[in-house]
Amino acid sequence: MIVQKYGGTSVGSVERIENVADKVIKYRNNGDSIVVVVSAMSGETNRLVSLASEILGEAPHGPELDVLLSTGEQVTIALLTMALKKRGCPAISRTGWQLEIKTDDSSNKARITGIDTDKIQCHLDDGLVVVVAGFQGIDEDGNITTLGRGGSDTTAVALATAINADECQIFTDVDGVYTTDPRVEPNARRLDQITFEEMLEMASLGSKVLQIRAVEFAGKYKVPLRVLSSFEDGPGTLITTEENQMEQAKIAGIAFNRDEAQLTVKGVPDQPGIAAKILGPISDANIEVDMIVQNVAWDNTANFTFTVYRNDFKRALEVLEDTANKLGTTTVSGDDNIVKLSLVGVGMRSHAGIASKMFETLADAGINIGMISTSEIKISVVVDEKYLELGVRCLHEKFGLAEGAKDESSTA
Amino acid sequence: MIVQKYGGTSVGSVERIENVADKVIKYRNNGDSIVVVVSAMSGETNRLVSLASEILGEAPHGPELDVLLSTGEQVTIALLTMALKKRGCPAISRTGWQLEIKTDDSSNKARITGIDTDKIQCHLDDGLVVVVAGFQGIDEDGNITTLGRGGSDTTAVALATAINADECQIFTDVDGVYTTDPRVEPNARRLDQITFEEMLEMASLGSKVLQIRAVEFAGKYKVPLRVLSSFEDGPGTLITTEENQMEQAKIAGIAFNRDEAQLTVKGVPDQPGIAAKILGPISDANIEVDMIVQNVAWDNTANFTFTVYRNDFKRALEVLEDTANKLGTTTVSGDDNIVKLSLVGVGMRSHAGIASKMFETLADAGINIGMISTSEIKISVVVDEKYLELGVRCLHEKFGLAEGAKDESSTA
Repeated sequence: MIVQKYGGTSVGSVERIENVADKVIKYRNNGDSIVVVVSAMSGETNRLVSLASEILGEAPHGPELDVLLSTGEQVTIALLTMALKKRGCPAISRTGWQLEIKTDDSSNKARITGIDTDKIQCHLDDGLVVVVAGFQGIDEDGNITTLGRGGSDTTAVALATAINADECQIFTDVDGVYTTDPRVEPNARRLDQITFEEMLEMASLGSKVLQIRAVEFAGKYKVPLRVLSSFEDGPGTLITTEENQMEQAKIAGIAFNRDEAQLTVKGVPDQPGIAAKILGPISDANIEVDMIVQNVAWDNTANFTFTVYRNDFKRALEVLEDTANKLGTTTVSGDDNIVKLSLVGVGMRSHAGIASKMFETLADAGINIGMISTSEIKISVVVDEKYLELGVRCLHEKFGLAEGAKDESSTA
Repeated sequence: MIVQKYGGTSVGSVERIENVADKVIKYRNNGDSIVVVVSAMSGETNRLVSLASEILGEAPHGPELDVLLSTGEQVTIALLTMALKKRGCPAISRTGWQLEIKTDDSSNKARITGIDTDKIQCHLDDGLVVVVAGFQGIDEDGNITTLGRGGSDTTAVALATAINADECQIFTDVDGVYTTDPRVEPNARRLDQITFEEMLEMASLGSKVLQIRAVEFAGKYKVPLRVLSSFEDGPGTLITTEENQMEQAKIAGIAFNRDEAQLTVKGVPDQPGIAAKILGPISDANIEVDMIVQNVAWDNTANFTFTVYRNDFKRALEVLEDTANKLGTTTVSGDDNIVKLSLVGVGMRSHAGIASKMFETLADAGINIGMISTSEIKISVVVDEKYLELGVRCLHEKFGLAEGAKDESSTA
């Protein structure tokens, strides 16, 4: 029993919907029971949002938006079911309310609270392919809710969990998760496997293949998740728990993020509460902070550095200068020509020396490191933007991630 | 308590939806509890049908078409509810399944079998304007069904019946029902009232303002129905039972139909079963017959004449010639340059002389009558197409239907 999810691009035209029907039937002919979750046809959600914007202004929200947007997926389930039946494949289309996908009542960003599996099981027992509208549910009062953009991934994982599916397959416009962005490093290699934790770090660092919520959900309920291409055949990348991976490579991949800007206050008094005094006004200004580093200078003052999104940079600089004045220190500096590079891999938990090898590699390439931050399964550094490609390629080679270098990687 | 229905043209753009919101609020400020039934935005249903056609070919059908098309009205209820709330008017949007509008399971042309009035009453008690998606319901198994094109009128009437509304108001792009088509007779007058029976005759004869099913439904349950303009203010036309009309004009209006062609077989043996022998093959060929007239000739043979839709004319002529050969008579003739003119009015039941006055009027104008057919409340004649305008205008004047001539009409 498998759950497949096809995103907006994969169902972006009637022709593509017909291709999806062919693909579904191929899997079905292998003997699998199949639940298909679909998104709205690409462009449709934007069209509907802009109708709502004409009435409510920019960034429309509220329960009627859910009523409006949920029609997008309903159109797709109708068309895909038509295409399946035309090919002689017994199928049934189901909306969120028809399957009783229950959610809380937070409109536009609801969370699934339960799914009536009897109904879907009953359709599967009848030998039907069940075509489900992603992204939508109903609250306790029977109102239509939506899970927020990209919520179809979450629907697929929730259904896979509920019916105890063998695998949840997310079909998308890439053929899997790569060791790094192939546009930066042409030798980037598709990973056969990656752990949920690694995937979370890769995704949050900019490799946007899957919705973070869906990955968290799948990890929590240990539903094997596979990312595949809608347009080409291939095994894709299996996202699974660490335990399943017999021979874990130390490093899964290299993520990077261009959308970073760095701010520093020098010579702040090294005393308790100083971090809060600096970041409080930033957060009050609704500016999100990513990396934070503080180190002590020789004169009992500290240098405090953090990064923000680039388009918050100017505003953050103003807020910070104001704060620095109040703290009696005026040495504020900033840089929005930086990028963050991160090595990600559960293997680094048990392998010493990854960090030093990373720093050494960058040093050999003449790349100066601005900031360093580490977690259990990743090491991030901030470097000058112009070194992004060079840094990624050097690390990719040094850690044996390249295409055809797999053996080296696992024995290194 | 009133039920209002706005058709596709009335909600054809966001701007028009905002106008509808203003109109609803004006009625609400008069103290009415309001249920609003809406259609899909004009063009939307055609867009969805053409998507389905890409998969299923011309004239798509089946249960998935219901799933597809029902999204059109769902978009409108979301947008109208947004517009109402933006104006501070408490409102709630409801789909067919949310209101439990139960239907049979005939996809694409389902019939309403029941409505859960508790839910809608509960929303009205909360002081909400209830915005309902027309044209849709659910069958016993929870499948989405639709009532067929124009079914939103039926939804409105069914809701009005179920909640015992004081009036069901159908807003459209005309400001009421006219004595005849104003494009043919500029003096045509908007009727303040018309009976359900007259409306049915007017509608089936070509004055397409309302869905026939909705009028039948309203007549059966005696729900006062009012046709009004979405774009201008005005009282519209009230469609009601005969008993309510104190001073019934003899003639309500003049309907006409250009889509007619006439076929005649001369000299058929005047014996039982001959009509069936002639019309059987026509009906076997799936050709619909409108008027049928037979009269006896002097030689114990009969002339048999009937009318069909114009685009069935050629086919009908071929079938008829074949039949005539078998019956041993070859005198078959046809004419597709004819029109049907009909006087409609419940008043003619109790007033003699309407028919003779009609024939006299046409004769005075030099118009030859080809066929005559009568019912309780209408008299139809077939005349040469070139006399359509002249005939309508002469009858309109003679029966005192013109603007400002109302008094003459009721005393004539």
